[in-house]
Amino acid sequence: MQTLLINLHILTMDEKFTEYNPGYILLKNNLIQEVGPMSEVPSQSKVHTLDGKGAFAIPGMVNTHTHIGMIPFRSLGDDTPDRLTRFLFPLENACMTKELAYHSGKYAIAEMQLAGITTFFDMYYFEDELAKATDEMGSRAILAETVLEEACDSREAYGGLTYCETFIPKWLGHDRIIPAIAPHAPYTNTKDSLQKAAAISEKYDIPFSIHLSEMSFEMKQYKDEYGKTPVELLADWGILNNRVLAAHCIFATEADIAILKEQDVAVAHCIGANTKSAKGIAPVQQMRDAGIRVGLGTDGPSSGNTLDLFTQMRLVANFHKTYLQDRSAFPAREIVKMATIDGARAIGLADKIGSLEVGKKADIVLVETDSVNMFPIFDPYSALVYSANASNVRDVFIDGKQVVADKQLTHENLTTLRSNLDQQMGDFRIKALENS
Amino acid sequence: MQTLLINLHILTMDEKFTEYNPGYILLKNNLIQEVGPMSEVPSQSKVHTLDGKGAFAIPGMVNTHTHIGMIPFRSLGDDTPDRLTRFLFPLENACMTKELAYHSGKYAIAEMQLAGITTFFDMYYFEDELAKATDEMGSRAILAETVLEEACDSREAYGGLTYCETFIPKWLGHDRIIPAIAPHAPYTNTKDSLQKAAAISEKYDIPFSIHLSEMSFEMKQYKDEYGKTPVELLADWGILNNRVLAAHCIFATEADIAILKEQDVAVAHCIGANTKSAKGIAPVQQMRDAGIRVGLGTDGPSSGNTLDLFTQMRLVANFHKTYLQDRSAFPAREIVKMATIDGARAIGLADKIGSLEVGKKADIVLVETDSVNMFPIFDPYSALVYSANASNVRDVFIDGKQVVADKQLTHENLTTLRSNLDQQMGDFRIKALENS
Ligand SMILES: [Zn+2]
Ligand SMILES: [Zn+2]
Repeated sequence: MQTLLINLHILTMDEKFTEYNPGYILLKNNLIQEVGPMSEVPSQSKVHTLDGKGAFAIPGMVNTHTHIGMIPFRSLGDDTPDRLTRFLFPLENACMTKELAYHSGKYAIAEMQLAGITTFFDMYYFEDELAKATDEMGSRAILAETVLEEACDSREAYGGLTYCETFIPKWLGHDRIIPAIAPHAPYTNTKDSLQKAAAISEKYDIPFSIHLSEMSFEMKQYKDEYGKTPVELLADWGILNNRVLAAHCIFATEADIAILKEQDVAVAHCIGANTKSAKGIAPVQQMRDAGIRVGLGTDGPSSGNTLDLFTQMRLVANFHKTYLQDRSAFPAREIVKMATIDGARAIGLADKIGSLEVGKKADIVLVETDSVNMFPIFDPYSALVYSANASNVRDVFIDGKQVVADKQLTHENLTTLRSNLDQQMGDFRIKALENS
Repeated sequence: MQTLLINLHILTMDEKFTEYNPGYILLKNNLIQEVGPMSEVPSQSKVHTLDGKGAFAIPGMVNTHTHIGMIPFRSLGDDTPDRLTRFLFPLENACMTKELAYHSGKYAIAEMQLAGITTFFDMYYFEDELAKATDEMGSRAILAETVLEEACDSREAYGGLTYCETFIPKWLGHDRIIPAIAPHAPYTNTKDSLQKAAAISEKYDIPFSIHLSEMSFEMKQYKDEYGKTPVELLADWGILNNRVLAAHCIFATEADIAILKEQDVAVAHCIGANTKSAKGIAPVQQMRDAGIRVGLGTDGPSSGNTLDLFTQMRLVANFHKTYLQDRSAFPAREIVKMATIDGARAIGLADKIGSLEVGKKADIVLVETDSVNMFPIFDPYSALVYSANASNVRDVFIDGKQVVADKQLTHENLTTLRSNLDQQMGDFRIKALENS
């Protein structure tokens, strides 16, 4: 089946930042068959055609770090200092069920689709349920089961390891879903559990993710105990390699950056969550200069609140320019790159997604240019980074299927997804109010 | 005429942060006649009624610093280091006409209305045209004519001073519009022009605004020349008093803060523009602790890109928490306060606007709570600061009149406003491309 998208301002995000304005994209099944200027548009008589009316066409955005099971936590205790111990851990242990995770997952995926995120890297519990949710919703994802001592989806210590032995083989080979493993953090794991997780990643050749160098107490703990940074220690333990995606790396040192580069570890940069929690600003310019693959992440709806990369792009620009005291640093075009092709590189999928090029998967986002905030447009990348918001996303294609049409889901009803989730939240709400 | 708004989650932003959920607001002509819980709603038979369907009702937001004539500059040269001298000054001098300013003003006001800003403080040229635009659009504003040596709306040096002698008396006494005067900055004025502007402000008892302590070169220049900060110097020259609104104050020292407090000078904090240009983060916590009136500003569409305070609220939270290394600093409720009642205080209108209280002007914004990014809501202020974006504004009332209904302007057509502006931009576009 073919679909023809016409009258677009196409930002291909290929190596040369090729643009077509006006341009067209021809999809065949789940792939991009042609991209080019409207002057070369093929005859439209036989194919389903969508008139883009001057919208930007960009590659589906890649969210390299999130926790889709955590929608229930949004706006709960945002500004409280003891949030993790007062709300997150107790509520997860007491109230997180596979039904709640599943319905939260579906809702979170809907939110990402409506915001133009077509691929995400998740780290949570009950990943088998979340894989089911992702499959049903039609998104592309890497879904990493969390490993830590006490998890809400397991009774044994580090039960994520056992969980993975069923979960991973079950989903291996799926078209859009890649199962993965994710020790929560160094400080919630042992050397043994980390090495076992690394072995599982190696055995199945699947991604491995971990929260790394995120907390100041984490840095102190490893300095006191081992005289090393967490990055140095994981390198010593043989955990780091090109399957690893490290989330945050706020406190990465120069030596850490050299190690991450040498081991080809990728980084998920979550500026919104990192700065909302006052943790700090990761040295992303230095990482990029060193050649490290860096993508953007929303983090979970509990820390990052919204699951869209427009918010993150704007924060990346303002924070890194200010941090580097250089208004020319992190120009808009590079930030759009981070949200698309660089994100694809960070999660190892750059051969399939991240740019609008012939042969790649048809993951395409149309962003309206006729909303009030989008005039005039001298620079499309500036418009995307400094003016656009998630509500400006109009149409979204994933794997050749249109999942969002004119700002509405095509395949599910948002009100139903919300009420399904809400129905699962009874105990959660009671417990949340008790702790407030 | 009466209008009844029902089924709202009302955040009054009064002294006690009173909320009504569900609540109602009864408008009579241009005033709030009643606010209360739905249990006390008056009989609806005789009045025009709008069902809020669970939306948040907040006071109309107050944008304390902008330049509404500058829509043509949006997305032009955003990341270039020499933007001011390469684009802004040459284009203003060559291409800014009263027609361009007027149509830009109408468009900018539309953008603000659609984003829930009901009152703004402008600083630009051709303010008589901008007053006409504001009057036609139905917004509330303080409109300050710029004074600097070479202005695009005057042939004589510091022609803004002469301009004001006609402009100010013409608009004094208008219901929604207050004329004002605004020397551009200390470094673009002389002691004489500043003192003359201050005298005009005193003579008519109208607001005075100025860009202050915004530039590092400005700080150095005054240190070198006078051994003082710009704030100290203006105080010495007798310029500072409670009619003054200082924009930015990024580099305000402890001594400056004491002076600003003593003279009851208010501050317009423009975090988005300040950090996008890598200038720095104003010491707003210290200003607030000292009792200085601080409001939020978008700055112009050239520096701040979008004319909405949702973007600014989110940036205020993340930047100040990180700057203070305290995740509890600047809690969401205080940030909503800064965008509403504190902004009203900063521009001297707190007796009329800024909160939803009986007797205040009916400037009211309804923010949808059924969009995907707004679930669940444990804390309405968190939802507004961390989740909402400008596109979530659904209905807006200014001075009792509904100017936005279901996300559309009620009184003008956005497409027409855009095409009117576009038609005026011919020369501007040519010159902009020449300089690119
Ligand atoms: Zn995380
Ligand atoms: Zn300004």
